[in-house]
Amino acid sequence: IIFHSIEKLLTPQDLAGLDVLVTAGPTREPLDPVRYLSNRSSGKMGYALARVAALRGARVTLVTGPTSLIPPPGVEAIRVETAREMYDAVLQHFEQADLVIKAAAVADYRPQDVSSQKIKKQGQDMQLQLTRNPDVLAELGRRKKDHQLLVGFAAETNDLEQNALAKLTRKNLDLLVANDVTIPGAGFDYDTNVVRIFGRDGEVESLPLMDKNRVAQKILDRVAKLLTTRRGAK
Amino acid sequence: IIFHSIEKLLTPQDLAGLDVLVTAGPTREPLDPVRYLSNRSSGKMGYALARVAALRGARVTLVTGPTSLIPPPGVEAIRVETAREMYDAVLQHFEQADLVIKAAAVADYRPQDVSSQKIKKQGQDMQLQLTRNPDVLAELGRRKKDHQLLVGFAAETNDLEQNALAKLTRKNLDLLVANDVTIPGAGFDYDTNVVRIFGRDGEVESLPLMDKNRVAQKILDRVAKLLTTRRGAK
Repeated sequence: IIFHSIEKLLTPQDLAGLDVLVTAGPTREPLDPVRYLSNRSSGKMGYALARVAALRGARVTLVTGPTSLIPPPGVEAIRVETAREMYDAVLQHFEQADLVIKAAAVADYRPQDVSSQKIKKQGQDMQLQLTRNPDVLAELGRRKKDHQLLVGFAAETNDLEQNALAKLTRKNLDLLVANDVTIPGAGFDYDTNVVRIFGRDGEVESLPLMDKNRVAQKILDRVAKLLTTRRGAK
Repeated sequence: IIFHSIEKLLTPQDLAGLDVLVTAGPTREPLDPVRYLSNRSSGKMGYALARVAALRGARVTLVTGPTSLIPPPGVEAIRVETAREMYDAVLQHFEQADLVIKAAAVADYRPQDVSSQKIKKQGQDMQLQLTRNPDVLAELGRRKKDHQLLVGFAAETNDLEQNALAKLTRKNLDLLVANDVTIPGAGFDYDTNVVRIFGRDGEVESLPLMDKNRVAQKILDRVAKLLTTRRGAK
């Protein structure tokens, strides 16, 4: 905490007064009290964004799925498990937020029926009926007010640019951070990442392999630039 | 490591010369490069057993699914992800083992088809076709030689005693450690556990809430007792 205070003293407070909502980690979608569907998100990228935003002076709320990480100092952490819990927590904090960064990997589908008892093994095969989860990011895109900035992520294994640009438009985002999770050192569970930042203004920034804290700085630099431009336009 | 050496000096070496194979943690069954099916096992119980067995003088091999834990000192750790990888690793080390403790929570089913690319959202509903994984414990029960001891676990949410006794017989186990994961402080992700140890000899021991290291001691006490009885019978 002392170290954090000193680090903050040495960091330009260019996000001071900004309310930032960051989501991080995977969600878990239970089948029964024991089993669940999830994904490989470690939460590291989202936690790095929360940490750096707080250092740069923002008030940060971190809505986080299950991870083994410790929330950064000075950040209000809200723990959730399922996509629906994340949806509720995010919508509850959305209105007061100036900037929302959705780094969480929210499950698209959940098991339709959740058994209250541990399911016993039955036959050789089993069918699991899945149903669609609410799309947090799309809903935020719909509700977004003029003064709010929305940053999304896309973890892709193929057709990165095409998928990224489509998502940027479809979900009404200001920035989209895309990474190809098949590149060594990029994406899930690594401390490093290789990303491309797509802006609604058409600006694309391709970053080399770097530490996730450094990636977080770069993303927030882009955000700070957007904020300055907007203020200038008023 | 120094602390471990001192602790070991102070611990009776009643498992000296014993080859112990411990499995721990969950397995992950991928749907695609990003998503997977898993369960809430933290690996803590298995890691505690490996640690305590090594302290008591055994040579310990730990086959572990993905956890956030650090393997105990003096233990050979083999990391696996899926049930089939665990099956292979366990069978490879089974023959030389005198004692096998299967604390891992191995997935009963895996997705039938694994997509090499991230699956894109499609309709409102989705069907996931699952197929049965090989049953590690049952296979070990079949292959078990007279000098080998086999200890299994059962995480139950209902009908604990009935399910435990059936499993003990069906899988040819020497001991079965059962816990009701619905009890607060018992089972997944807790540092404590509430277990009942069922012996093939009919002896049942119900232990109160205790630290998982303490539970590990108790389980290995039962194993040591079985070994002494067997040696006496020869």
